[in-house]
Amino acid sequence: MQNVSALLTERRGEYLEQLFTLLRQPSISTQNVGMEACAEWIVRFMQSCGLDARLMPSDGYPMIYGERIRDPDAFTVLIYGHYDVQPPDPLDAWVSPPFEPTVRDGRIYARGAGDNKGQLMAQLLAIKTYLDAFGELPVNVKVLLEGEEETGSPHLDGFVSRHRDLLRTDLVYTSDGPMHDSGAPIVLLGVRGMLYVELTARGAAWDNHSGNKGNIVPNPAWTLVHLLGTMKGADGHILIEGFYDDVRRPTEAEVELLKALPYDRDRVARQIGYPTLDLDGPTYYRKLSLEPTLNICGFHSGYGGEGSKTIIPATATVKMDMRLVADQDPDDIYRKFCDHVRRHAPDVEVRHLGAMRPSRTPADLDVVRVVTEAVRTAYGMEPVLQPSLGGSLPDAVWTKTLGVPSIIVPYANFDEANHSPNENIGIDNFLGGIRCTCHVLHALGRFAGTVG
Amino acid sequence: MQNVSALLTERRGEYLEQLFTLLRQPSISTQNVGMEACAEWIVRFMQSCGLDARLMPSDGYPMIYGERIRDPDAFTVLIYGHYDVQPPDPLDAWVSPPFEPTVRDGRIYARGAGDNKGQLMAQLLAIKTYLDAFGELPVNVKVLLEGEEETGSPHLDGFVSRHRDLLRTDLVYTSDGPMHDSGAPIVLLGVRGMLYVELTARGAAWDNHSGNKGNIVPNPAWTLVHLLGTMKGADGHILIEGFYDDVRRPTEAEVELLKALPYDRDRVARQIGYPTLDLDGPTYYRKLSLEPTLNICGFHSGYGGEGSKTIIPATATVKMDMRLVADQDPDDIYRKFCDHVRRHAPDVEVRHLGAMRPSRTPADLDVVRVVTEAVRTAYGMEPVLQPSLGGSLPDAVWTKTLGVPSIIVPYANFDEANHSPNENIGIDNFLGGIRCTCHVLHALGRFAGTVG
Repeated sequence: MQNVSALLTERRGEYLEQLFTLLRQPSISTQNVGMEACAEWIVRFMQSCGLDARLMPSDGYPMIYGERIRDPDAFTVLIYGHYDVQPPDPLDAWVSPPFEPTVRDGRIYARGAGDNKGQLMAQLLAIKTYLDAFGELPVNVKVLLEGEEETGSPHLDGFVSRHRDLLRTDLVYTSDGPMHDSGAPIVLLGVRGMLYVELTARGAAWDNHSGNKGNIVPNPAWTLVHLLGTMKGADGHILIEGFYDDVRRPTEAEVELLKALPYDRDRVARQIGYPTLDLDGPTYYRKLSLEPTLNICGFHSGYGGEGSKTIIPATATVKMDMRLVADQDPDDIYRKFCDHVRRHAPDVEVRHLGAMRPSRTPADLDVVRVVTEAVRTAYGMEPVLQPSLGGSLPDAVWTKTLGVPSIIVPYANFDEANHSPNENIGIDNFLGGIRCTCHVLHALGRFAGTVG
Repeated sequence: MQNVSALLTERRGEYLEQLFTLLRQPSISTQNVGMEACAEWIVRFMQSCGLDARLMPSDGYPMIYGERIRDPDAFTVLIYGHYDVQPPDPLDAWVSPPFEPTVRDGRIYARGAGDNKGQLMAQLLAIKTYLDAFGELPVNVKVLLEGEEETGSPHLDGFVSRHRDLLRTDLVYTSDGPMHDSGAPIVLLGVRGMLYVELTARGAAWDNHSGNKGNIVPNPAWTLVHLLGTMKGADGHILIEGFYDDVRRPTEAEVELLKALPYDRDRVARQIGYPTLDLDGPTYYRKLSLEPTLNICGFHSGYGGEGSKTIIPATATVKMDMRLVADQDPDDIYRKFCDHVRRHAPDVEVRHLGAMRPSRTPADLDVVRVVTEAVRTAYGMEPVLQPSLGGSLPDAVWTKTLGVPSIIVPYANFDEANHSPNENIGIDNFLGGIRCTCHVLHALGRFAGTVG
C-alpha cells in the first residue's frame, strides 16, 4: 500500500482540482438544476478512472452505473453514492458562493462537498489510485450513483429490483454522512426503518360552544386521547397487537458492540437539551437503535392561542412516526396499526404518509470484520462499530431487496454542515476517504483470493 | 293592569325615542369608549323614572345604583343589568351605523339594542309606567347596572360583597339574552359554572429528531395523553377524585321541567352540525345543564402542517374547561384537579385561566311560581321553564354571595345578533319587556301584601 500513499501525495493537487470541477456543477434534484450535465461529467470521469460506465434510465433522474469485472465469479463489492445535492438556500448565509468551491482553514466549502460529491469522488479516485498502484483491482467493483437521494430515493428500490442480475454483489459499501465527533471513523451496520401516519378524528361539522353544547357533541380530541392511550402504556410499552412480533433479538455480538460505543451522558444530555437524562451507554444505544418507537410528532385540535376559548373542537389530528427495527416490515406494521384503530375507534381516519424498511447487517460476518480492520488500518484509529443508527436511510434496498450485507463508512467531518449553508469537507477527510476505500478494496481481496 | 297597557300604547313613540337616545351613546367597556357619559345619562334617566339613583365607584367602571323603597321591611326585588356593550367591529358588516339606531321591519338596529340596553330600558320604563299607572310600586325595587359585563364582570362579586346591606333583597331579576326560538318567553333558574385550566408538559429544551433521539427524549404529548386518560374514561365518566362529590341531585320538580322543555332532535342536530345525535329531550337537557363536563378546548404539540415532520416535540399544551353544576365550587374543583395532576404527572404545570360558580334557584319556590305566572300572563304564552343553562353567567353572585333566588327572563328576540354586526331588538320585544316587568312587579306585590 506504500504505492497508494505515494500516489496520493503526488496527486493531491490534481485530485482536489477534479473534485472542484464536480463541485462547480450544480445538481439540485428538487429544483431540476444541472442534473444531466452533472451525470454526464461523472460518467466521463468514471471512464477515466478505469470503469466501464454509462447512464441508465430510471423513473426519475438517470442512474449512473459503472463496473470493472476481473472475474464474474469473484467477490464483488457494489459502491453506492448520490450525485444530487440539497438546494443552497439561504444564499445570504454562505461565506463563499455554494457552487464556487473555496478552501479555508483546510476545508473545501461548497454545496455537496460532504454530501455526497466529496465522498463519491473519494471512492472513484480510490479505484483510479488502486489501479495505478497495483495494475488491477483485487475484487470486482460495481458503482451505482443515483440522482434522487435528497428527495427520498423514490425510484432506487424499483431500479434495483429490475436490475438484480446486473447489480449482483457480495457487499454494498456506502460512504455518506459524518464521522464520529471524536474524529474516529464509524462502521455502521444498519438503520431503523420508519412508518409515518396521520390520525384524524371528527366530531361535529364545526366547533361548538363548550357551555351551550358541552356533554352533547362528541369531542374528537378526547377520541384521540383515548385511542392513543390504547396504543402505548405510560411505561412506554407499545400495545398494538403484534407490534413486537418481528423485532430481531440483538445478537451477543451486537450487545457487545453497544458496550464499546463511546458515550458521555452529560454531553448527550446537553446535545438533546434534556439535562436529567438518566441512561447508561449500552441502554442508550439499545433503546436508540435496536428498539422501535411509537412517537407523537404532532397533536393539534381546537384553540391554541393565548388565554381561553371555550369550544368543543370539530376535529383533532395526530401525526406519528414509528421507528422500526429489523425485521419489522412497515407494511405489516401499518396493517396492524390500522387493525388496532378499527378495533378501538373505527371512525378515526388513518393516512399513510411514508415508510422506510429497517436494515441490519449481522455484526459477526467475516466481511464486517475485514472491512472494520481495513478502516482501522486506514485511519490508524479504532472505528466506532455501530449495529444500527437511530434514524432512517434507504439501506434495506441492499439488505432486503438485494439480500446482501451493507456497510456504511462515512468519510466527511462531523461538522460538514450537510443540508446547511457553508457545507464543507476537510481536505484530510477527502484524502483520507480515498485512502480508506483503497484499504477496504485491498482487504476485500482476500475473499477473491487476490490478496492477503 | 289596563292602565299599564293604555300608557304603553300612548307613550310608544316617547319610550322608543328614549331608548334611541341611550343607543346613540357608545359605551364600549373593552375600549373605554363613552362609559362615563353613558352611566351619567342613565342615572339622570333613572331619576326621571322615580328612582333614587347614583353612580357608585367600583374597582373598574362605576356601578349604577338606584332604589325606591316603600317600606324597608317589605319584599324587595333587585333588578340587574349592564350598560356596557361589545365593540361594533366589523363595521363594514353593519347595514346602518351601530350607534345610529335605525328601524327596519319592526326592529331597532344598533349595538346594544338587545344586549343589554333595550332590556334594561324595558325594566326602567316599566318602573316609570307602573308608578304612573298605580301611583306607587307594589314592592321595594333596587336596580344595579354594571359596566363590565362584556369583560367578564371582574368587579361585580367584590362590589356586591362590600355592599350586602345596601343590596339586601328577596329576589334578583335579570333580563338578558334571547327568548326561545319559538317566540316563547324563557324563565331561567340557573347556569353551569366554569373552570378553565391550561396544562403544559415539557420534555427536552427543544424539538429533537425522532429518529436520532427516538426512545431517549421524553415526549410531552404522550405525557399529556396519559395524564388525560387518567382524568376521564372512554365512557365519559370523570375520574378526578371527588369531582362529583358536590353535584346536586336534580329535584323531582327539575326532572319534571326537563320533560316539558321543547326539543326537536333533528333541529338540534342541524344546529350543532352533528347529524347522528342520538339523545331524547330529557337526557339532552339533563346532560347539557345539570351534569358537569371535562372538555378539551385545545391540544397543541409539535408539528401541525402539511405532510410529515419527524420530531419529538419539546412541549405540549392542553386547554380545558369544566362546566360545573350546583353545588360544585370552582376553587374546590381546582384543588382536586391540581391534586390529580400532582399524583399522576407531577411535572406537568397547571395554569388557572378563569372560573365562574354555578347557580341554581330551586324550581319549587313560591317566588318562581309567581314570576312564571306573571310572565305567562304578560306574553299570553306558556314560558319555557329551564332549571339551568348549559353555559355560564355570573349568576352565583346572587345565589351564593347574596344567597337569594335569582330568575332570568330574557326579553330580546332569538335572533338579536348580540355580539355580532346588525344587533337588534324587535320593537314588540322591547315593549313586551316593559309589559312583562310591570306584570312581574305587580305579581310580586302579593309577597308585600300590596296586591293579589
